[in-house]
Amino acid sequence: MQKPSLPKGTRDFGPVQMARRNYILDAIKATFQLFGYQQIETPAMENLSTLTGKYGDEGDQLLFKILNSGDFLKELSAEDLPKGSGANLNKLSEKGLRYDLTVPFARYVAMNRNELSFPFKRYQIQPVWRADRPQKGRYREFYQCDADVVGTDSLLCEAEIIGMIRQVFTKLGLTQYSIKINNRKILTGIAEAIGADGKEGPLCVAIDKLDKIGWEKVQEELQQRGFQNDSLTQLAPLVDLKEGVGARMEVLRGFLRNSSTGLQGLQELEEVFGLLERMGSNLDHVDFDPMLARGLSYYTGAIFEVKVHGVSIGSVSGGGRYDNLTGVFGLPGVPGVGFSFGVDRLYDVLEELELFPTDRMEGTQLLLAHFDQAGFDYALKCLPVLRGAGIRTELYPEVCKLKKQLEYASKKDLPYVGICGDQEIASETLAVKALVTGIQETLSLKEVIAKLQGAV
Amino acid sequence: MQKPSLPKGTRDFGPVQMARRNYILDAIKATFQLFGYQQIETPAMENLSTLTGKYGDEGDQLLFKILNSGDFLKELSAEDLPKGSGANLNKLSEKGLRYDLTVPFARYVAMNRNELSFPFKRYQIQPVWRADRPQKGRYREFYQCDADVVGTDSLLCEAEIIGMIRQVFTKLGLTQYSIKINNRKILTGIAEAIGADGKEGPLCVAIDKLDKIGWEKVQEELQQRGFQNDSLTQLAPLVDLKEGVGARMEVLRGFLRNSSTGLQGLQELEEVFGLLERMGSNLDHVDFDPMLARGLSYYTGAIFEVKVHGVSIGSVSGGGRYDNLTGVFGLPGVPGVGFSFGVDRLYDVLEELELFPTDRMEGTQLLLAHFDQAGFDYALKCLPVLRGAGIRTELYPEVCKLKKQLEYASKKDLPYVGICGDQEIASETLAVKALVTGIQETLSLKEVIAKLQGAV
Repeated sequence: MQKPSLPKGTRDFGPVQMARRNYILDAIKATFQLFGYQQIETPAMENLSTLTGKYGDEGDQLLFKILNSGDFLKELSAEDLPKGSGANLNKLSEKGLRYDLTVPFARYVAMNRNELSFPFKRYQIQPVWRADRPQKGRYREFYQCDADVVGTDSLLCEAEIIGMIRQVFTKLGLTQYSIKINNRKILTGIAEAIGADGKEGPLCVAIDKLDKIGWEKVQEELQQRGFQNDSLTQLAPLVDLKEGVGARMEVLRGFLRNSSTGLQGLQELEEVFGLLERMGSNLDHVDFDPMLARGLSYYTGAIFEVKVHGVSIGSVSGGGRYDNLTGVFGLPGVPGVGFSFGVDRLYDVLEELELFPTDRMEGTQLLLAHFDQAGFDYALKCLPVLRGAGIRTELYPEVCKLKKQLEYASKKDLPYVGICGDQEIASETLAVKALVTGIQETLSLKEVIAKLQGAV
Repeated sequence: MQKPSLPKGTRDFGPVQMARRNYILDAIKATFQLFGYQQIETPAMENLSTLTGKYGDEGDQLLFKILNSGDFLKELSAEDLPKGSGANLNKLSEKGLRYDLTVPFARYVAMNRNELSFPFKRYQIQPVWRADRPQKGRYREFYQCDADVVGTDSLLCEAEIIGMIRQVFTKLGLTQYSIKINNRKILTGIAEAIGADGKEGPLCVAIDKLDKIGWEKVQEELQQRGFQNDSLTQLAPLVDLKEGVGARMEVLRGFLRNSSTGLQGLQELEEVFGLLERMGSNLDHVDFDPMLARGLSYYTGAIFEVKVHGVSIGSVSGGGRYDNLTGVFGLPGVPGVGFSFGVDRLYDVLEELELFPTDRMEGTQLLLAHFDQAGFDYALKCLPVLRGAGIRTELYPEVCKLKKQLEYASKKDLPYVGICGDQEIASETLAVKALVTGIQETLSLKEVIAKLQGAV
């Protein structure tokens, strides 16, 4: 007899969690579809040649690798052992589990280049696996939820990403949040402007810690990274910028006046804002943050990050524009822009803000309960009528004490029980009891349907 | 530069395939929910101790195993190598990929026994992985789609399974099919009745080939397996039974008159049919097949298998009742009954019968196209109005030749293009062209919305 357990860093999702996750995912899917994105899925396993070298050395370490089938040790000799796993990996394993959805998407685009219609807009919602050290809020299996459009430079895509984020958040009842936006070219320009050309990498790594460690410590770190005091002085005005997109654009226009790259980044941003305006939209929730640097090594244009106010959870969405997604797979010149929602984090945010609907969503709406065989038989007749009207209905499958049936309903958190006693059988009604309030009313099947069809 | 490829036996699902798969899965999910089943998900990885020994020796061979993280060779010594992989597996791998959804479900029930409300009705739709030799129609990654209820002996569950299958098939437009049903106890009874007590296993393996190799060859095989000629003579009347549930029940009642187990199986079947009748349902599509033996070693009561007529594809759904799902995980005495839909096979069936809807389902309904910047700007204004009314709309993101935009729409198989020319801008209309017919009409946005809201 085994005491079963789960691999560390993995989770089961029970019925309540699944209904809530589906609530989030349905809002996201509907929005992606409304904006013309189409769903694809790729296999959990990819060839290691597809995965390795795409996520840096650290990423390669975190890939879950699949043992080759058959006698996978037969390729090894005693001399191989001291070399360790790294040197012998290809003898034992040829496949790994998906680490993100971006690399498989790039592979998909490269493999299907002739069938696809560009610009190609796809979304993808699947789990990914990382052999990270498990800790609170970090799992070895988690869902990613990506939307990308490839094959166009049009900044309409950026404007539409802002539109999609706002639509999803509206659907989910989230009202207090910021869509931070920046542009890689602005970061390049800032480095130029402070006399640290090409050093936007270390600049951003340090600046990213501003909220946590403060400007003093950030300056120390920048000095250690070889930034001149002069550069730091020049940088200071950007550290504590006024609020407001317009005001910040104004400051940056001055700051970047000698950097053509930086000014181009500003202009791209302005075009995105202009597109929003011409679509009849304002800049609500949009927050220009010239220091936002998420995933710097990867992005070449716009950079996004979304934070919900008043919760302890970090960013719930992010993304950006890149120049050459599929080059490594032999298809150069495919620019694109993408973003993703963090489903686990959105779940935690909605829970913390108590924004999940209080109805049972996908769950059973009504349990038919009974005292005896006659009640059970009557319930059997009611069942197809109720289900035929779309009411999610269960019949307690065994003739037993009513108490046991009510406990079942209560433990399953069902909203209503329809009791089938002698009186109800005689009058062709149900005694419908609302479990939360305890209120009971006698209703015809028609009335039950009318009552429950309104509820979800 | 790599030429990317997929691991053998795995597939990508492109936009059209995904929309069609979702069409099937949505029909199944809605039905499961209507009948009170709740969704759960379990991790892709399970501990090998959870998986091994559950699927027979052959199944154990087909498990995909995950390499331990870090230097997984450090546990091995030169003396280990000649012993081969089997003897050393635990040093290299502790986890494997899910092989089906049943064992993870059993583990879930055992681990959550105190939180769950029994009878517990769950459904689960997730991929599983098997290191099978890939061949036509057999993949190394494929979705399973299971519904089970555990913790009750009530035959209402069996009746409801028939109800769910019929409801899903109605939704999918499938009208010509058989739900074959049998009972393990009837098979036991048949073995008893022909003087081959306890040999229903080999009996069924041979009988299962009846359609393919004919009665002559089946007899030969049964003789080789040690069945007496006398047994074969007694079996003959069951080989070519008349059609009709009633007629077959009648024959079996006589055939099994001396087997109390067999008669109990018959009685259980009768009770299932009686429950259907009391729910106002008939036996349409139900086909009693006393030789149906699917998954014999596992099932203890009802056995189901569903075949669609007039297609080359095998069974598309199946299941049965079992006595002790969770015993191996330390929770004895949990009977249950479950069934599953084969999503890949249903896909092939609907394709062969041309039953997929001809509309674009989840895809874009309308592409806004334009001749110049003025048209693009006008389209920008139309876009949020159309999307606000729920019309899945795209705006071609670059100003370019109309021909290119129409090619995009046509390659993506979109139903309508809304052209924004000078006349349309002036009259605040769209020139809506139906791509299939080529018919073009000038419509106000309101009229466009009315036209497309009806379509899906």
